Amino acid sequence: MGRVTERRPVIRIRDGAMSSRPDTLVAEEPLEIRLNGKPLTVTMRTPGDDFALAAGFLVSEGVIGSAEELATIVYCGGARDEGGNTYNVVDVRLAPGVPVPDVSLERNVYTTSSCGLCGKASLDAVRTTARWRLDAGRPREVTTGLLSALPDRLRAAQRVFDRTGGLHAAGLFSPEGELLDVREDVGRHNAVDKLVGNAVRAGWLPLRDALLMVSGRASFELVQKAVMAGVPLLAAVSAPSSLAVDLAEEAGLTLVGFLRGESMNIYTGAHRLLLPAPTG
Amino acid sequence: MGRVTERRPVIRIRDGAMSSRPDTLVAEEPLEIRLNGKPLTVTMRTPGDDFALAAGFLVSEGVIGSAEELATIVYCGGARDEGGNTYNVVDVRLAPGVPVPDVSLERNVYTTSSCGLCGKASLDAVRTTARWRLDAGRPREVTTGLLSALPDRLRAAQRVFDRTGGLHAAGLFSPEGELLDVREDVGRHNAVDKLVGNAVRAGWLPLRDALLMVSGRASFELVQKAVMAGVPLLAAVSAPSSLAVDLAEEAGLTLVGFLRGESMNIYTGAHRLLLPAPTG
Repeated sequence: MGRVTERRPVIRIRDGAMSSRPDTLVAEEPLEIRLNGKPLTVTMRTPGDDFALAAGFLVSEGVIGSAEELATIVYCGGARDEGGNTYNVVDVRLAPGVPVPDVSLERNVYTTSSCGLCGKASLDAVRTTARWRLDAGRPREVTTGLLSALPDRLRAAQRVFDRTGGLHAAGLFSPEGELLDVREDVGRHNAVDKLVGNAVRAGWLPLRDALLMVSGRASFELVQKAVMAGVPLLAAVSAPSSLAVDLAEEAGLTLVGFLRGESMNIYTGAHRLLLPAPTG
Repeated sequence: MGRVTERRPVIRIRDGAMSSRPDTLVAEEPLEIRLNGKPLTVTMRTPGDDFALAAGFLVSEGVIGSAEELATIVYCGGARDEGGNTYNVVDVRLAPGVPVPDVSLERNVYTTSSCGLCGKASLDAVRTTARWRLDAGRPREVTTGLLSALPDRLRAAQRVFDRTGGLHAAGLFSPEGELLDVREDVGRHNAVDKLVGNAVRAGWLPLRDALLMVSGRASFELVQKAVMAGVPLLAAVSAPSSLAVDLAEEAGLTLVGFLRGESMNIYTGAHRLLLPAPTG
């Protein structure tokens, strides 16, 4: 289906010099798994091997343990705007006599709908629930040099990571690069939730002038959390997914990936940054 | 609450020499978030900042946007065996007039129960749903040298990672270290589900003699998936969580972390491995 990777434009900063080129990103799309026709769970995944993903999920949950317990796995007819199949909804039919679990295994995703499921639905769901629009003019004049200093500051502020190697960190910084708060968790999304939760309780939302930095990758879910908290800039140590970049673009978020020392990739919202001169 | 990290015994292999000592692991426990008394979601998280985590989650989902919309956040009275509070269930009360969302945000966790929630409940849930017990005698005589070769083989087999840097990989190996299958996904749990799903459809379950290797960390969820597929050995490039080690111990799984070149940490199930001689 050719959707394991997608191409997006990116501004690359290397050793203080700038260049532009297309970059290959890992694709991320929602998959709804139905069991005997009933919605069971939605997961954000990389398209491909979807029948295996559905079958493996059912093994992990104890629903099946052998091929004989599976009758069929098919893509449901989805509905894009143009009427095509989204290939993002699969229906698993169990063999006769295999008990259907009575627990709900629904995951936390707003975008489940009866009319198919696609990345665009995920973007629309964030837009309709967001309370604030990101202000294109704030923060002003963030330099790439300032961004370069953030990973070390985040790491220095981590209280647990160096001892266990098992925690993700999320840090909130001022436009001057001052660390405002740092939270850690075994789950990256939880670290960001803790940061945003402290901010909302302190009356800081929307975080119009803050910079958010996370260890690891930038998924759709992390961009969603930044947008919902009103943060205009998200920087990650590793790669973003295609849907993360799409949401950042649509919401007007500045998204920086592979932030390591003097190097970084700018995927969206470069207007908030003071960039070095392009290389010849 | 002193549960951000926990200590567990570990066997360390460094440069071909073995030593034993306690290791510090990041703690992982389930948290159930209730909204106005009704269960909303369960997430695996590192204890601490739980009220902030709950508030931030509600911001991300568009339920609240300011401190004024929150009335109270409290720990529910849980029930450990000894009657104490688990501190793993929080109830958020919204301020009068704030609309309660009508969507279900339940996450996929079997362990939600009305009698409190703790790590032990998560372990029990896996035990009661597992179809196979891991065979303590299989596979036999896996050397640490063989394990050392797996990360390079997994990386060499990855088709997408090198281009995007955004994918997790899961590889299935024979006891001789031969790569049987590799799957990739933006989500680590999805990569393992794809691997297990292909295996179940091929009639390979339980995977009594296979070795499972994952990029990144070893969470409770990944150990659960290995156990449910009958895999006796799970190796990860990075750290495991405390609950991952607890489940591996209880299920009889061999759990290896920080597998990097000739170095690794063995957390549980060392009886399946041929170990080098201890250092003096």
